[in-house]
Amino acid sequence: MQEGRRSAGPEIDINADVGESFGRWRLGDDAALVPHLTSANVACGFHAGDPRTLLETCSLATTHGVTIGAQVGYRDLAGFGRRFVDIDPADLHADVRYQVGALRALAAPSTVRYLKPHGALYHAVNRVEAQARAVVDAAVDLDRLPVLGLPGSLFLEIATSEGLPVVGEGFADRRYRDDGSLVPRSEPDAVLQDPEEAAEQALRLAREGVVQSLCVHGDTPGAPAIAAKVHGALNAAGFTVRSFA
Amino acid sequence: MQEGRRSAGPEIDINADVGESFGRWRLGDDAALVPHLTSANVACGFHAGDPRTLLETCSLATTHGVTIGAQVGYRDLAGFGRRFVDIDPADLHADVRYQVGALRALAAPSTVRYLKPHGALYHAVNRVEAQARAVVDAAVDLDRLPVLGLPGSLFLEIATSEGLPVVGEGFADRRYRDDGSLVPRSEPDAVLQDPEEAAEQALRLAREGVVQSLCVHGDTPGAPAIAAKVHGALNAAGFTVRSFA
Amino acid sequence: MQEGRRSAGPEIDINADVGESFGRWRLGDDAALVPHLTSANVACGFHAGDPRTLLETCSLATTHGVTIGAQVGYRDLAGFGRRFVDIDPADLHADVRYQVGALRALAAPSTVRYLKPHGALYHAVNRVEAQARAVVDAAVDLDRLPVLGLPGSLFLEIATSEGLPVVGEGFADRRYRDDGSLVPRSEPDAVLQDPEEAAEQALRLAREGVVQSLCVHGDTPGAPAIAAKVHGALNAAGFTVRSFA
Amino acid sequence: MQEGRRSAGPEIDINADVGESFGRWRLGDDAALVPHLTSANVACGFHAGDPRTLLETCSLATTHGVTIGAQVGYRDLAGFGRRFVDIDPADLHADVRYQVGALRALAAPSTVRYLKPHGALYHAVNRVEAQARAVVDAAVDLDRLPVLGLPGSLFLEIATSEGLPVVGEGFADRRYRDDGSLVPRSEPDAVLQDPEEAAEQALRLAREGVVQSLCVHGDTPGAPAIAAKVHGALNAAGFTVRSFA
Repeated sequence: MQEGRRSAGPEIDINADVGESFGRWRLGDDAALVPHLTSANVACGFHAGDPRTLLETCSLATTHGVTIGAQVGYRDLAGFGRRFVDIDPADLHADVRYQVGALRALAAPSTVRYLKPHGALYHAVNRVEAQARAVVDAAVDLDRLPVLGLPGSLFLEIATSEGLPVVGEGFADRRYRDDGSLVPRSEPDAVLQDPEEAAEQALRLAREGVVQSLCVHGDTPGAPAIAAKVHGALNAAGFTVRSFA
Repeated sequence: MQEGRRSAGPEIDINADVGESFGRWRLGDDAALVPHLTSANVACGFHAGDPRTLLETCSLATTHGVTIGAQVGYRDLAGFGRRFVDIDPADLHADVRYQVGALRALAAPSTVRYLKPHGALYHAVNRVEAQARAVVDAAVDLDRLPVLGLPGSLFLEIATSEGLPVVGEGFADRRYRDDGSLVPRSEPDAVLQDPEEAAEQALRLAREGVVQSLCVHGDTPGAPAIAAKVHGALNAAGFTVRSFA
Repeated sequence: MQEGRRSAGPEIDINADVGESFGRWRLGDDAALVPHLTSANVACGFHAGDPRTLLETCSLATTHGVTIGAQVGYRDLAGFGRRFVDIDPADLHADVRYQVGALRALAAPSTVRYLKPHGALYHAVNRVEAQARAVVDAAVDLDRLPVLGLPGSLFLEIATSEGLPVVGEGFADRRYRDDGSLVPRSEPDAVLQDPEEAAEQALRLAREGVVQSLCVHGDTPGAPAIAAKVHGALNAAGFTVRSFA
Repeated sequence: MQEGRRSAGPEIDINADVGESFGRWRLGDDAALVPHLTSANVACGFHAGDPRTLLETCSLATTHGVTIGAQVGYRDLAGFGRRFVDIDPADLHADVRYQVGALRALAAPSTVRYLKPHGALYHAVNRVEAQARAVVDAAVDLDRLPVLGLPGSLFLEIATSEGLPVVGEGFADRRYRDDGSLVPRSEPDAVLQDPEEAAEQALRLAREGVVQSLCVHGDTPGAPAIAAKVHGALNAAGFTVRSFA
């Protein structure tokens, strides 16, 4: 989405998970959401996303000038990739390459420009070193694909040590505690559902300058409205909303 | 496999299906078979082949100088891709791109140089035009990937009309009827299990000059011995055994 | 649903597909639909329905006094069981027993009282005799489970010849042609979306007396309203709306 | 297997995992192994075992008078159920009921008489209380199905507290340390491959009287020979080799 391109303020990216439908089952309103993003984390088929959905999602992103990233996860359709799996790192390495390669062929002639772990894998790479290294090694083998993750995390630290470009993200629509950690999803107020509130938090995060990208969640009914509000508020505040890639 | 490279006779290729293990389940003796091939049809995960197996199989092929092709199939692990599926051509198109892209990322830095449909899809593309077109269109979108199939088939005809390079194959170890058709697998003598007999048939097919490649089946216990015998007989008869790609 | 139990008019059943969610993906509003049914065709996990969804759906049906049936299909999550699969009848036989047994254990202490093929299998058993026989043989082995299908179909004919109880159904919300066949889903007006229109058709079908059950489709947004209208109209017209089982 | 029925010595059971093939992929020589068992842990399709294999395996067990048990596991074909999965206990509960119900329908008219967790789930129920409770609760709901596991384990303790019959097992062909723990599979001498050695260990375990069943592993080439030797040695030493069920 190019709304902010003419601005000359500090740059910030907006990313969200898309392409998470599977066959007959629809999830998220990608057509409404994607125009408000600058980076689209497209699922890769292991935890969500059948090939035809991925093809159409990549096409949608390309139409709107939105950068395509690979949302890689555990092989776990039944659990939507939200169950930690104690997988052999060598298997995980191959699984990540497989998923990103598959998405590349569906994104063509557009390009997959970054990788972001999904769900339980997102959390695992911040605490299970062998899994973090497996994902990073896969990104290295995938022509040194940039990775998106938590600022200061084990995952980004290992990626940096391997010379990969890294992008830190904050969450526009997740509630933070005073110590900077996220309120767990198991608690009732973990998610900010009011677009105004999400936009305010997005502005605060963008102004702090710690993160290069802001994540909004794609699988809630109000996601497009939140993304639109966040995007508009960042533009109005003088940020250049643009993909990091 | 470079055994025949110094020869200057007419060229012929030997292909076989490999990479068909899945997780704990092993199938075929790829380590023994691959050295006798010039083209390896590597499974892509939809009917066989987990990512780690594919990674290791591509590495094995590369080590032996064997060309890597994508053995694409229906999404059907339980049926090993041998059940015809009346899939929407748009889904099949995306499924083929997904599979080949996945294999490319695992073959890298080597390259996937051709596509061969597997099992029931192999037969479907010779009679179901919409499926044949879906596979051909996918090959076109995959940087005009050459396709391997039956000489004179609907599949190769459509591929040719779209400007794709095509390769016709014969079967070294399947019995032919006098009219040129294959004895169906449901009949007891459908498969030639004697390496000598397969080698003789390979020589006959190579001399006829109709096919550019000879297929040996990879999932039988004697496959490596058959491939070795076929390869040796072709060399001895003055053929240059070399990949078409 | 007991609404019609006091009535003494001719009996008619209302069935619909439920339990078709899978993991993170929701499909249909079962909580709103089930109270208006007398028979619930619960998916069995091969084309839709994760075990926890099935457990909760069976519990919902039991709470509302709705009879539980097994909606069996091809092993095809990606295609939602709507792709014909040319499966070996011996495999299909085992697949059907597997699915019904699984549902039985989740329905307990309630009982699975009938079997209805889903999607492409529903159509296949009306034209592919070997598949029809495989499903019927499975129903026989499942303690002679009654089967639900098209009146006059090959499927019900074979089931009858094996001594199984059979139930013929009509479609309240699908448009019929003058010759009694259904307008194919590929045509724009194939589905009746107006509850009034569906209720009128339901009444007509019930009065004709050819079918013992009326199917409403569960995966459309208006399904609960259609089922409610159909149920109410049948009650008002003096039918006893009650499960056939 | 009834070889020992006439003996009047102390009773002991021999169990092994069977039915672990999947589609085209064969694993284990069940036809040679089953006659030497008294209890067959038949896979249930989530980590291994397609329905037709399960049907044939149950038939084989019944033919030989071998008791059928359900070998339940995580939904993980690619990892053969050997990867720990941090699954929601409510999902696991439903998954276990689903699997056992499926096997029951394939075993009929024989009966599934016990449940044994497989692979990573076998280990998880000894340390993750919520998963252990989920499996036990499923067994309770499955008509109070007896469970097979490690003597003294959390799993058997919880099962006992819920009033389930429990069976403790030892491993005839796994090496024990002096402290009674198993040598991990990651170490080279973890498995006893010499039938004589396995038979000696089986005798020792049987004489100690701590376990009611002895497990032999089914997926190794020598499994039938080991089972035969173990069975013969127990018979010769005066044990009644008989199922606990």
